[in-house]
Amino acid sequence: MENKADIGLIGLGVMGSNLALNIAEKGHRVAVFNRTTSRTDAFYGQAGSLRERIVPCHTIEALAEAIRPPRPVIVMVQAGQAVDGQIALLRSVLSARDIVVDAGNANFRDTMRRFAELKDSGLTFIGMGVSGGEEGARHGPSIMVGGTEESWRRVEDVLTAISAKYEGEPCAAWLGTDGAGHFVKTIHNGIEYADMQMIAEIYGMLRDGLGLSAKEIAPVFAGWNRGRLNSYLIEITATVLAADDPGTGSPVVDIILDRAGQKGTGKWSVIEAQTLGVPATAIEAAVAARVLSAMKGERTAAEAVFGVPATRLAGGRKALLADLELALFAGKIAAYAQGFAVMDAASKEFGWNLPLPTIAKIWRAGCIIRSQFLGRIAEAFGTSDSAANLLMAPAFVEMMKEAHPSLRRIVAQAVEAGLPVPALSSALAYFDSYRQGRGTSNLIQAQRDFFGAHGFERVDAEGAFHGPWGSGG
Amino acid sequence: MENKADIGLIGLGVMGSNLALNIAEKGHRVAVFNRTTSRTDAFYGQAGSLRERIVPCHTIEALAEAIRPPRPVIVMVQAGQAVDGQIALLRSVLSARDIVVDAGNANFRDTMRRFAELKDSGLTFIGMGVSGGEEGARHGPSIMVGGTEESWRRVEDVLTAISAKYEGEPCAAWLGTDGAGHFVKTIHNGIEYADMQMIAEIYGMLRDGLGLSAKEIAPVFAGWNRGRLNSYLIEITATVLAADDPGTGSPVVDIILDRAGQKGTGKWSVIEAQTLGVPATAIEAAVAARVLSAMKGERTAAEAVFGVPATRLAGGRKALLADLELALFAGKIAAYAQGFAVMDAASKEFGWNLPLPTIAKIWRAGCIIRSQFLGRIAEAFGTSDSAANLLMAPAFVEMMKEAHPSLRRIVAQAVEAGLPVPALSSALAYFDSYRQGRGTSNLIQAQRDFFGAHGFERVDAEGAFHGPWGSGG
Repeated sequence: MENKADIGLIGLGVMGSNLALNIAEKGHRVAVFNRTTSRTDAFYGQAGSLRERIVPCHTIEALAEAIRPPRPVIVMVQAGQAVDGQIALLRSVLSARDIVVDAGNANFRDTMRRFAELKDSGLTFIGMGVSGGEEGARHGPSIMVGGTEESWRRVEDVLTAISAKYEGEPCAAWLGTDGAGHFVKTIHNGIEYADMQMIAEIYGMLRDGLGLSAKEIAPVFAGWNRGRLNSYLIEITATVLAADDPGTGSPVVDIILDRAGQKGTGKWSVIEAQTLGVPATAIEAAVAARVLSAMKGERTAAEAVFGVPATRLAGGRKALLADLELALFAGKIAAYAQGFAVMDAASKEFGWNLPLPTIAKIWRAGCIIRSQFLGRIAEAFGTSDSAANLLMAPAFVEMMKEAHPSLRRIVAQAVEAGLPVPALSSALAYFDSYRQGRGTSNLIQAQRDFFGAHGFERVDAEGAFHGPWGSGG
Repeated sequence: MENKADIGLIGLGVMGSNLALNIAEKGHRVAVFNRTTSRTDAFYGQAGSLRERIVPCHTIEALAEAIRPPRPVIVMVQAGQAVDGQIALLRSVLSARDIVVDAGNANFRDTMRRFAELKDSGLTFIGMGVSGGEEGARHGPSIMVGGTEESWRRVEDVLTAISAKYEGEPCAAWLGTDGAGHFVKTIHNGIEYADMQMIAEIYGMLRDGLGLSAKEIAPVFAGWNRGRLNSYLIEITATVLAADDPGTGSPVVDIILDRAGQKGTGKWSVIEAQTLGVPATAIEAAVAARVLSAMKGERTAAEAVFGVPATRLAGGRKALLADLELALFAGKIAAYAQGFAVMDAASKEFGWNLPLPTIAKIWRAGCIIRSQFLGRIAEAFGTSDSAANLLMAPAFVEMMKEAHPSLRRIVAQAVEAGLPVPALSSALAYFDSYRQGRGTSNLIQAQRDFFGAHGFERVDAEGAFHGPWGSGG
């Protein structure tokens, strides 16, 4: 048995290759297979000293044969039908208790379906969210696992070994059954959308509101990265803003077209949040901003008609920079509060019992939204009397009390100057709505009762009531 | 044949009863059936002189027998499984070319399924959106029809007769095949959510920002109802604000709990907008506001922690009132632009060829969002070179040029005062993003290329490029 591989891996694209090298490097034996045999050979040929722990296989049968039972096989192919194709292949060579691990960016509803289908045939299915991009796959991603606890025990050694570490703690965890891992990965990405959009809005205020160049903005973010905003996304913002385009000598960001792509996880986050009935307005604003960014032609035409707004911000630069930092921080807290609220609701809806503190912990390193800030979230959700919403955790109450006045001033200034701040203003509106004891939906209930006889509750009595509208309603 | 009914109707709840009376009143013979026979008898007993055109039926067979072929039967029961149950019943008594008309608030995806299922059995299915509440059903609703054009011809006389009229034009139309009618009704409701939420936000500024009582706010809306905001929702806002609670003598709105309900069409609007990839942020904000309103306990706890914001607005009252009116108008334009953009995208996606000007026209009367404003929208979309987005139609460009500075000032003031304006600020962010020629997603593309090698476009060359990140990315 000692020559058998600990795990198999199918799909030697960049992500799959890097995961396989990562596994071998961490001391585990990995059997690899790719539909195109030459790619398997090329991968093996370039693996150097790691070859001693890599078993290249030219057939799916050979792959199955090479792994120590119960056999886990990571599938790292394009999300969608390709996954179902690989699963069908694997069913022909695997047997009961073997484990298929989908490490792609699957929609968790597909994962739930596959989990149920494989269960019927005696196999076990793991849906595994992997964040960190190519570098993460190679040197340590954040790994979010959904499946049976038993199947997790079989792969735990390998996955914790290859995962990122935060102060020695592995950023890999079992989060719940069936779709839990892919759901959490989806919400990770939704939060990432909001995070990136809010950074872009602050960048826009620095660029258009203060008239700073990319070279001048880079050190602002670099400075913020040493403070409360410290995170991978702020760090790379500073890095990309400082980079020059070799061909033109201009800052790279200045030659990049302002048309953003998306791959669907942001959209999924919002759809699931809506389905669950949880406000995720900052994520929605970020998804909408990407869509609007893609409408470059329409935007250019609209600017020609409406004119370029007068965008210079009033006020001293030093005070503005301090406000921008705190505004971004407050917006970030609200966006994360939304994302965690969506996971909390999904946990109840799907019976996952998601460990929110663990999720925050395994996001502290390896993934795109990694930051120390997530450690604060882990602490906030880690107490026995955790708040219903991150905004109400004592440490975050203090942070928001300090930061929301800045968010308020920044949004107000952006709005007056004509600079779009969709995610920041949505985050603020969320906070302002959440902290308003007496809202305005009493009027909405009055209207609904007037035109639709929907009834309303009273502030001074229990039950359902109707207004004295008579025949007018 | 002359004694046969023109149409049948199943389900004598309030909506069904009112529709049946409306049909009879407009001179058409209607055969009615209700599962509970006593309700059929009670309905008939109370129908007065309209009884001469009502045929009460105690069995589904009798109903089928009573109608002139091809037989249209309106089903007006609770959306969901009840509709499928009635369809199953009808299949046993109807024959080829007969028409089942679902007049409930169905999800258009269910309508598409039912349309396909009935087609297989030779029957025709119409999904019919009806807006206007109980009063509308009785005296003239707005009617949005999806189905085959042939089936529409069979029911056109009855439906145009019972529909609302706007300056003599019936507010009923065939909009496209299968789910077109119910989809348009869904978006109608989504727009209604945004409309109502923005009114509630303005009400909140008057109540909390200016310190006005309900009695003082009522005439403000009444006045606005004589201007550009003229609409049913503004009219009833004035009415409900002026109404007193008989028991306490207080204004009714003051004794209504600020916890709003929802029945799902707002949520559907947002989910479909997301699925189609169209920003509908004002509608999303309105749905989120209803969800947050329902979290009364959390909001009260949050206010206790964060404190009541200092909400009094600065500035002269007269200028503020003028700004509030224009702000609401600008927000409304942006929200309608989003709703129509969603319908435009759905039309392409589902091959409906939705007539946007007709939709705007049949919303001018009968439905909850009825207004003269919709006539302007009909004109905007009615030209051969209609703009891609309502914001770009010449008349709306002029309106927005006049109104967006007010929206800007109002959102800025609300934000600084701590008054939540989620829908108004989302509407403004949409406008500001839409009219910005050079946005900030160049930074997002730089980040995505840095961590995920997603590539970017350049402003100065065609193709896909990567940044000079080296091994850092």
